[in-house]
Amino acid sequence: MGQGRPTTITPAKEANPRGLDRLFAAIAADLAEAESIFQQELHSGTPHVAELVAHLAHYQGKRLRPTLLLLTARACGAVTREHHVLAAVVEMIHTATLVHDDILDHAQMRRHVPTINSQWGSQSSVLLGDLLFTHAFYLASTTGSTLACRIIGEATNRVCEGELYQIGEQGNLNLTEEEYLTIIGGKTAALTGCCCQLGAIFSGAGEAVVEQLTRFGYDLGLAFQIADDILDLTGDEHQTGKSLGTDLAQKKMTLPLIHLFRHGTAEELRLVRQHVLEPHAEGLAALRDLLQRSGSLAYALQKADGHARNARQALQVLPDSEYRQILEQLTEQVVHRSH
Amino acid sequence: MGQGRPTTITPAKEANPRGLDRLFAAIAADLAEAESIFQQELHSGTPHVAELVAHLAHYQGKRLRPTLLLLTARACGAVTREHHVLAAVVEMIHTATLVHDDILDHAQMRRHVPTINSQWGSQSSVLLGDLLFTHAFYLASTTGSTLACRIIGEATNRVCEGELYQIGEQGNLNLTEEEYLTIIGGKTAALTGCCCQLGAIFSGAGEAVVEQLTRFGYDLGLAFQIADDILDLTGDEHQTGKSLGTDLAQKKMTLPLIHLFRHGTAEELRLVRQHVLEPHAEGLAALRDLLQRSGSLAYALQKADGHARNARQALQVLPDSEYRQILEQLTEQVVHRSH
Repeated sequence: MGQGRPTTITPAKEANPRGLDRLFAAIAADLAEAESIFQQELHSGTPHVAELVAHLAHYQGKRLRPTLLLLTARACGAVTREHHVLAAVVEMIHTATLVHDDILDHAQMRRHVPTINSQWGSQSSVLLGDLLFTHAFYLASTTGSTLACRIIGEATNRVCEGELYQIGEQGNLNLTEEEYLTIIGGKTAALTGCCCQLGAIFSGAGEAVVEQLTRFGYDLGLAFQIADDILDLTGDEHQTGKSLGTDLAQKKMTLPLIHLFRHGTAEELRLVRQHVLEPHAEGLAALRDLLQRSGSLAYALQKADGHARNARQALQVLPDSEYRQILEQLTEQVVHRSH
Repeated sequence: MGQGRPTTITPAKEANPRGLDRLFAAIAADLAEAESIFQQELHSGTPHVAELVAHLAHYQGKRLRPTLLLLTARACGAVTREHHVLAAVVEMIHTATLVHDDILDHAQMRRHVPTINSQWGSQSSVLLGDLLFTHAFYLASTTGSTLACRIIGEATNRVCEGELYQIGEQGNLNLTEEEYLTIIGGKTAALTGCCCQLGAIFSGAGEAVVEQLTRFGYDLGLAFQIADDILDLTGDEHQTGKSLGTDLAQKKMTLPLIHLFRHGTAEELRLVRQHVLEPHAEGLAALRDLLQRSGSLAYALQKADGHARNARQALQVLPDSEYRQILEQLTEQVVHRSH
């Protein structure tokens, strides 16, 4: 997290009518408040903890999860103290999973800086991730709402379950699209769904609105993760600021590969098998070409677009408002991005 | 956790008057109920998760934390559904830290079976630990008490902070006894204190009783950890069923070494420095002899006894009862044990 206007995921100011200035100022103020709670919660007198937490400032990214929570809150009603606290909570949980993911992926870079594990080793990374999880749950409990604790607990259970599902399927070339969707539904969409659910509940939204907005967040999460998995295969390390090709290195089948493996020629299957089971950097360019030519990248992108469309559909439960429009734009931006 | 009577930490039946049978049956039933909640919470349809969770059954150990929570509850009043749930929660959190500790220590064995990391690698271990943490917090929230969530959140924050403090001081031969106590106060005593606090609070104990029992659990935790650190230097791998010498391998200064380094001759200092900075298995026997001869082991044991005494002192807040007597015996058993 960090100060200032969210520049990467929410629509750029320039692209919007002048009337939106007020809205962006409000969201920026909300995010700044969440950021301040985040920092305050992690303040530590233990030098090593302070040093690691300070490094996390460099991890400031899209802040998709707190943005979703706060935008949903505004789209449903007023933003409360609970929203700011819970926005800090979901960002903390997301940061915990990033820190632990970087160990699992042996990733060297994130957001253009060295990862915690590459700079301080896996001991500190494991424990920093744990610290982020426990502080997130502690912080959630300060809202005085066991409902918030339960929703967040349930979502993080699904995040871990999804990640372990994926680990258990490493190297399984026959992973189906349905299984892939269950995996990313857990590891990504459960938390984005939870963000929107919390945003709506704490704005006093009715049951039907809460349900549709949870669905919105879930589908947006699926769209986001499919796009992320495409970027891991085709992205530019300089633009994304993180290590790429990690899915292949971890023998993880993602949607473009699943499609190619199911529909490719015998020769293409042989290539996918070779790349997944014995990944090597030189082969990545050839694999990209193949995914492009075979239409598998286009297929995956189209699936991401489909989930973005479902997400927009779910937003119909809300009366038209500027905040709803921003949420609608978000569904497109999570798919069509270069980082 | 597991079925049956707690045989390792609570006093052996044989050593007690026949009237205690009833008490042990009650504690065993409480622990069995907590175990059943633990298993039910972690039940999973994801094969890899189910396989990892099944392996955790082999980790069944002393069950010190749920035993403390349930005994404290009985010593203060009645055991409730919340106590059983929270006993499962604290054991789950403890198990999470064990799974992650084994990664940090590169430990191969625990409770006479291969560790999760040695059998399934660090990816699964990191995520399984995370899953245990998130399920523990979720489960705590099902009690409907944010107070329980807050107390558990606070304690686990301190556990992680203590662990990171220790990592930050690896190889620091000048670590003081006070700093060591802060470290183990976080990594161990915060959670044992939390167990007794929860046991007392959910039995409706008054403020003074809750405070003294929290202190009891904290001091007992300090005594337990000092004894554990002594065992890591002098224990028998066969008896303890886990990898030993891990503190030295991790360049962690524990109480016997801190004492020797402060009071030893120049030659002894040189030896400690060598063993901590360049640990090797062959040198361990010589180091043990030195710690024995110099009185550093006796000093550490005496400190553990001191904290056990403080713990017994805190128990005076309770009226005399059979459960108080068992808690008193526990303070001696955590220090004088071979595993």
